[in-house]
Amino acid sequence: MTTPSYVTATYIVESQLDIHAAAEVLAGEQSTGTFVRVARESDELRERSAARIVSIEELAPSGLSPLPGALGDPALLKRARIMLRFPLANFGPSLPNLLAAVAGNLFELKEFAAVKLVDLDLPYEFAERYPGPAFGVEGTRRLMSRPTGAMVGTIVKPSIGLSPAELAELVGELVEAGIDFIKDDELQANGPGAPLAERVRAVMPVIERYADKTGRKPMYAFNITDDIGRLEANHDLVVGAGGTCVMACINMVGLAGVEFLRRHSTVPIHGHRAMFGAISRSSQVGFTFRAWQKLARLSGVDHLHTNGISNKFYESDAEVLDSIAAVREPLLGLGTTVPVLSSGQWAGLAHATYNEIHTTDVLVLAGGGIHGHPDGSAAGVRSMRDAWESAAAGDSLATAEDRSPALRRAIETFGPARV
Amino acid sequence: MTTPSYVTATYIVESQLDIHAAAEVLAGEQSTGTFVRVARESDELRERSAARIVSIEELAPSGLSPLPGALGDPALLKRARIMLRFPLANFGPSLPNLLAAVAGNLFELKEFAAVKLVDLDLPYEFAERYPGPAFGVEGTRRLMSRPTGAMVGTIVKPSIGLSPAELAELVGELVEAGIDFIKDDELQANGPGAPLAERVRAVMPVIERYADKTGRKPMYAFNITDDIGRLEANHDLVVGAGGTCVMACINMVGLAGVEFLRRHSTVPIHGHRAMFGAISRSSQVGFTFRAWQKLARLSGVDHLHTNGISNKFYESDAEVLDSIAAVREPLLGLGTTVPVLSSGQWAGLAHATYNEIHTTDVLVLAGGGIHGHPDGSAAGVRSMRDAWESAAAGDSLATAEDRSPALRRAIETFGPARV
Repeated sequence: MTTPSYVTATYIVESQLDIHAAAEVLAGEQSTGTFVRVARESDELRERSAARIVSIEELAPSGLSPLPGALGDPALLKRARIMLRFPLANFGPSLPNLLAAVAGNLFELKEFAAVKLVDLDLPYEFAERYPGPAFGVEGTRRLMSRPTGAMVGTIVKPSIGLSPAELAELVGELVEAGIDFIKDDELQANGPGAPLAERVRAVMPVIERYADKTGRKPMYAFNITDDIGRLEANHDLVVGAGGTCVMACINMVGLAGVEFLRRHSTVPIHGHRAMFGAISRSSQVGFTFRAWQKLARLSGVDHLHTNGISNKFYESDAEVLDSIAAVREPLLGLGTTVPVLSSGQWAGLAHATYNEIHTTDVLVLAGGGIHGHPDGSAAGVRSMRDAWESAAAGDSLATAEDRSPALRRAIETFGPARV
Repeated sequence: MTTPSYVTATYIVESQLDIHAAAEVLAGEQSTGTFVRVARESDELRERSAARIVSIEELAPSGLSPLPGALGDPALLKRARIMLRFPLANFGPSLPNLLAAVAGNLFELKEFAAVKLVDLDLPYEFAERYPGPAFGVEGTRRLMSRPTGAMVGTIVKPSIGLSPAELAELVGELVEAGIDFIKDDELQANGPGAPLAERVRAVMPVIERYADKTGRKPMYAFNITDDIGRLEANHDLVVGAGGTCVMACINMVGLAGVEFLRRHSTVPIHGHRAMFGAISRSSQVGFTFRAWQKLARLSGVDHLHTNGISNKFYESDAEVLDSIAAVREPLLGLGTTVPVLSSGQWAGLAHATYNEIHTTDVLVLAGGGIHGHPDGSAAGVRSMRDAWESAAAGDSLATAEDRSPALRRAIETFGPARV
């Protein structure tokens, strides 16, 4: 007889209830069911199927407005970190069915003024069912011929509206600038304005020509996000034209859609997190990035957006750095996933970032920091690469600035740099 | 030349910015891109691709704690309802790519202390691509031989842990009690404790035997939620055994997963909304039910959970009634979707519900209200049916109670009834 396996889920909750009673509500709702014992709910059934409380740690109240519908006087709410253990046998190693247990109706319970899933620990059975990323850091570096150093990329701007011919021209400039990676904006998918097939037809010859000339083939992540029934054909279109990456908006095709694509894909999957804010921005409901990224990695993304420091979105630098660290932590023996640092990134953030993350196994995407460099996009790419190389070598920013005119000019334009 | 089509999205936002500037940020981020004009961002491109502000209506501030990362003094936030118009050509009639535009990165913008998508108006191109529900009210009534009156159903309890043999016994009792519909709990899918195949094998002969005897075949919604690659086989297993409904957790397989299932399914799809709270409970971020249900219906759900009045979740009765009304509103000429009223439902809520919704084209699920009736589940079903019939006939609750012993006993046990 094998030992039963369990999933452990950690929540931060606020409730009018005593924290132990709150934990019981959460465990009951998400397993054997309900307060009232119903017919056939034997002790043996409960023993086998009930979620158990592993630990409860009381925390200071947040002072935030309670979620709508929450019972009780806001001034009397108690806050706690609650760890629950669910028998794997309740749902099996199925990501969709795991979600129903650890992240289902519980978010709607009126007993909770806040209920956020902050971490998940999954048993090895999930890795037996889900192979995870097929390429990761090593496969991505190999395909783009960038064996060491930060991988430097950019996003097509304007996000939408370019004709395929204009896009090809822009891509020509970017590859000549020495870029490792280019991606479609998440707003650019398969609209009639610039259909995927036309973008592939326009872009890939430019990249192939550059690769023939230099022996180095930059990676272009075509956004193939669409209905599930179109993902395979979209992928095949890209790969058939020599493309080496496909991008999917994880929340638009669903984690299940990413997993479906993973079974078919022969190139890295660039996982965009658009719409993540809908499930995470409120500190009081939904998922933390730390919990969610495990599901994305199991689903098979090779690259995962974490944002970067000093970005235009809501997360603090500490949160971004924790996201990058989370993506780099081992997970059930799966292959690696590359953290993608984007939004507001430029060369002057390299030292501050590197000094926190101590790795160059990241894909750094700069828009304005490359396109907007006063000496052109080649100097923009140069500035990014010089900055990351010097940071990784342990040189100070001042030394780096002395040595690299491109970096110096970037700092003059976009600065000051962060240290 | 055809007239261009547009999607209209309505948001309620709070921001430190002047409300017009806030609307510009939203429109810019979600279409041509960014504040700074980049190379190739021609006037003609903007004319063609930019999202436009349709209307702005200033609202009283909410007084709620701002979302994390929001810029500005919370005391100075301005609140507004903003309607934006997006060219369909940006993304085409693709639900996943629509989401990137109307519900993507915008939720993460630090300019917003609140940003909630409250409604969506879609052009007819979406209905050309997505056929929507195949069965709806009429198909569901036909399959369960319940041509008129509220459809009365229940959920298997305990939610999980029953053996297939115990489940079959319970189903036997419920069908004999005259139930129209039974569903798996969303926690019960295909775990090793009670695999789908074994549940189908145990349950369907009980239902078929009852159908042979009475000529009426109650509908059982087997929860087939799982990886995309397993949905078709799970569906076929159910249908092959004579099953007439499959249930999918919409947020677990994704809207895209539902749409994938819709292309294959030959029976109604029972759409469960578990995890909806993650994207909707906060009033400050994510989707309202009114916006989201349009996407679910386009994806093809025949039944959609709305909760019912006096439920155990966070929504007020007014919100629940608005959800029921929203699901019943016409949408691009699609077939109907049945609102599913559940959570805390019993016979004593029938009059109060009917007097607001004025229809019996709903599926009402009662757990304790049926299983827990003092005279057994047949009396529980009877009480539900008597109450809804009398409400629909315009009788008062008092008259109904006089005429129906089952209803009277239900009110004695679970009451008072609501009027």
